[in-house]
Amino acid sequence: MTASHAVRGTDYHDSGLHHPDASKAQLVAEFSTFLPADAVLHTTEDLHPYECDGLSAFRHLPMMVVLPNTVEQVQQIMRICHREKVPVIARGSGTGLSGGVLPNEHSVLLSLAKFKKILDIDPLSRTARVQPGVRNLAISEAVAQHNLYYAPDPSSQIACSIGGNVAENSGGVHCLKYGLTVHNVLALKVVTVTGELVTIGSAALDSAGYDLLALMHGSEGMLGIIVEILVKLTPKPERAQVMLITFDDVAKAGEAVGTIISSGIIPGGLEMMDHLAIRAAEDFCKAGYPTDVEAILLCELDGTEAEVTEQLTQVKQLMAECGALEVRVAQNEAERALFWQGRKAAFPAVGRISPDYYCMDGTIPRRHLAEVLRRINALSAEYQLSIANVFHAGDGNLHPLIMYDANIEGELERTEELGGKILELCVEMGGTITGEHGVGVEKINQMCSQFQSAELLQFHAVKEAFDPLRLLNPGKAVPTLHRCAELGAMHIHHGQLPHADLPRF
Amino acid sequence: MTASHAVRGTDYHDSGLHHPDASKAQLVAEFSTFLPADAVLHTTEDLHPYECDGLSAFRHLPMMVVLPNTVEQVQQIMRICHREKVPVIARGSGTGLSGGVLPNEHSVLLSLAKFKKILDIDPLSRTARVQPGVRNLAISEAVAQHNLYYAPDPSSQIACSIGGNVAENSGGVHCLKYGLTVHNVLALKVVTVTGELVTIGSAALDSAGYDLLALMHGSEGMLGIIVEILVKLTPKPERAQVMLITFDDVAKAGEAVGTIISSGIIPGGLEMMDHLAIRAAEDFCKAGYPTDVEAILLCELDGTEAEVTEQLTQVKQLMAECGALEVRVAQNEAERALFWQGRKAAFPAVGRISPDYYCMDGTIPRRHLAEVLRRINALSAEYQLSIANVFHAGDGNLHPLIMYDANIEGELERTEELGGKILELCVEMGGTITGEHGVGVEKINQMCSQFQSAELLQFHAVKEAFDPLRLLNPGKAVPTLHRCAELGAMHIHHGQLPHADLPRF
Repeated sequence: MTASHAVRGTDYHDSGLHHPDASKAQLVAEFSTFLPADAVLHTTEDLHPYECDGLSAFRHLPMMVVLPNTVEQVQQIMRICHREKVPVIARGSGTGLSGGVLPNEHSVLLSLAKFKKILDIDPLSRTARVQPGVRNLAISEAVAQHNLYYAPDPSSQIACSIGGNVAENSGGVHCLKYGLTVHNVLALKVVTVTGELVTIGSAALDSAGYDLLALMHGSEGMLGIIVEILVKLTPKPERAQVMLITFDDVAKAGEAVGTIISSGIIPGGLEMMDHLAIRAAEDFCKAGYPTDVEAILLCELDGTEAEVTEQLTQVKQLMAECGALEVRVAQNEAERALFWQGRKAAFPAVGRISPDYYCMDGTIPRRHLAEVLRRINALSAEYQLSIANVFHAGDGNLHPLIMYDANIEGELERTEELGGKILELCVEMGGTITGEHGVGVEKINQMCSQFQSAELLQFHAVKEAFDPLRLLNPGKAVPTLHRCAELGAMHIHHGQLPHADLPRF
Repeated sequence: MTASHAVRGTDYHDSGLHHPDASKAQLVAEFSTFLPADAVLHTTEDLHPYECDGLSAFRHLPMMVVLPNTVEQVQQIMRICHREKVPVIARGSGTGLSGGVLPNEHSVLLSLAKFKKILDIDPLSRTARVQPGVRNLAISEAVAQHNLYYAPDPSSQIACSIGGNVAENSGGVHCLKYGLTVHNVLALKVVTVTGELVTIGSAALDSAGYDLLALMHGSEGMLGIIVEILVKLTPKPERAQVMLITFDDVAKAGEAVGTIISSGIIPGGLEMMDHLAIRAAEDFCKAGYPTDVEAILLCELDGTEAEVTEQLTQVKQLMAECGALEVRVAQNEAERALFWQGRKAAFPAVGRISPDYYCMDGTIPRRHLAEVLRRINALSAEYQLSIANVFHAGDGNLHPLIMYDANIEGELERTEELGGKILELCVEMGGTITGEHGVGVEKINQMCSQFQSAELLQFHAVKEAFDPLRLLNPGKAVPTLHRCAELGAMHIHHGQLPHADLPRF
């Protein structure tokens, strides 16, 4: 999605924040007492690279960018910003897809790009202690010598940072079997909004007290600044084998997913692509996908030699019963890589056949896969916008890619509306408006569909417990009740917002 | 542990609560307008069964007990108690081991014993929607026809309730492979302290907003009243095979655990018992354990036929390299059940050879298993109290059983002190003071060793976000800073508590 688009400025103004007490010049001067000149960016030219994340339709310059390289510096920055009531937006690699690090002119953008060290690898405990700016894939590369890897693998894993993965609770192709980020992190060091350093979680499997560790995951930088992460490592499976399974009907493919899962097999990855996505991927990278089918599944089985052999046989038989056209097992490691390459390149491949596309991210209970596909097709026809569907099918995480042309008047707006409808469909089916990309600014309106006022108030109360002045990443992830009321998504009793006596945040 | 013991009354008085506004008689009258007479208990005789949970050394009568059987009744009770500022302690089956539901005379005990319905079973999504009073094992029994089960299996699973499992984030023999309660629950319905009904989590694998679902797990009834639970179900493995592995040295057994895990095998269960525990168990239930060895491991492998066969061979070879005396694979299902029966009966077995025992629960990083065992032995000698060790070894969860005689002057006090030392040892090793039993009143002092003041303050702030009047289960799980300061476990700066301006709770 490359089109520029007006910033959702109201998110900030809604948030009830005052203008910061200190001027930009004062802050630059104070930060410069302990940060080198190239770690305090404040000219328009220097700020431009930070105006958006992967959701590039939304852009705005921050007041300034700071690039600390020690925990003490992060603490000092937070103490100053807290004293001056300056909002702070923490940023990793900026590969997020929901505008979670979208800046605004009143805020300091705190980049963790210099926190790139892998501090410790412990093969016996199967853990690594890393800084937040370490790239996801770099962890797996560093521990490969011990026959271990870090399991969650977002498509952006070559670039995205582990701190950002925690902030968004990222998933990936393997999260059905190996869990989301929250299931692969043991402990965090976090700098609070007041500049204190706290440890959350422990090296042991459980931790006393409230589960703040899980709470930090997916909190989108709104509860604290993550400065160190203890990740779990996973043994590399002895064998991994991928099969390409084709169908003449998308609904059949959806049912086949349910059949595999309810047989008790948990594949390492179970991905689905529909006709448009297949054609785009095949044109782009010649993965060997047949282009005359309606849907394919990529089913990867991993484990011991014997286990994989046994499950391959089982899955083949199940797929025959589900009416698959063909089941093709990758014959060697090169073909396996090729099968995956097509899937992993599906987004850019769609980008080649459409001027712009909008990648959605919602999750549904697996059992409704076939119905949701049917209804997405109907929405596509209604809005006259093509949709290529790429799914983490095994865990019900949908990535419909809406194709549009930002240069055609009104298409972006129609695309956004269609996207909203798809997310609301996920909610209607008992699912949620996010799988692994977070809410950010992108889906903040759909939060009003997902949650009741009592639930939103509870979120705001939790935020208040960490950040009573609402300085951390204001205006993201959790909508104000006021916003929801304006969208008509909240019941108004006697002309009043529920809990009208509570702050509107 | 059967000895009676003075209640830790100061926990309540420390909590800063005022006396409730309404008299007992007024509350009984008001509750009786919507609850039948046998659901409002208030005579001393009727209250006696509720004076303690599994930590029977601590006993106290509640002001009254209410037994609602609908969600609306729970809401109504909470609205009344909130209006009158009456503390409420929610109780499941009362099998907890840390005094998490210890009553006091100012509080209403809200029993969920009547919430016994399994509301819905969905084999395709592999979920069950259940009420909180349903017994853990009853879920597995109800879904067995679909070849599914509910994975977490605390030793008390025949009696403990699923709501209590969520409140304590219970584990069990299989949690190394299948996770704690938090990893097996998708959604909760919760009645808030003000009587509102909120839904937390969803039927999908991820959920937008802060992770309140994980936060509720292990929150010991201090954030809300759980009234409905959507649990994940797990396919029964095709085959499960247990092996009994014996050692002439406890440290060797500890190292063997690390060897199995770092080989990449994740056993369904990996349990360890030392000499004293083995002897007690064998005397009690003739499980076939050799009584002349220093330690045994029970290693259960589960999965497909082929996988289990392959892993059995691998583990046998690894154990030979680790210096095991003998590796005995259960020859049939009867022997498998017998091997497990010994382990599961270890606690009552120890109860037979000692007038009283105190079951500890701490977790350490697996790599320190051998050293921690050595130091527990040294503590045992120092305090002249025998300790039988039973471990969920695979996940580093220790259950040392301290044997004592409450009728001997001072032995209970020495036992409690020794228990505290063991928990502090867990913290020193980078572990935690709880594995699966919670903190309750039992380990509230050790929380001061585990956490810094900033971390404890964060816990209190989270509590405040759900329950600003601190009416839900007051005095449990999270100590006041004041308590920690009195224990000398907190650094005092300039004669002041850190954040002395904040309420002491």
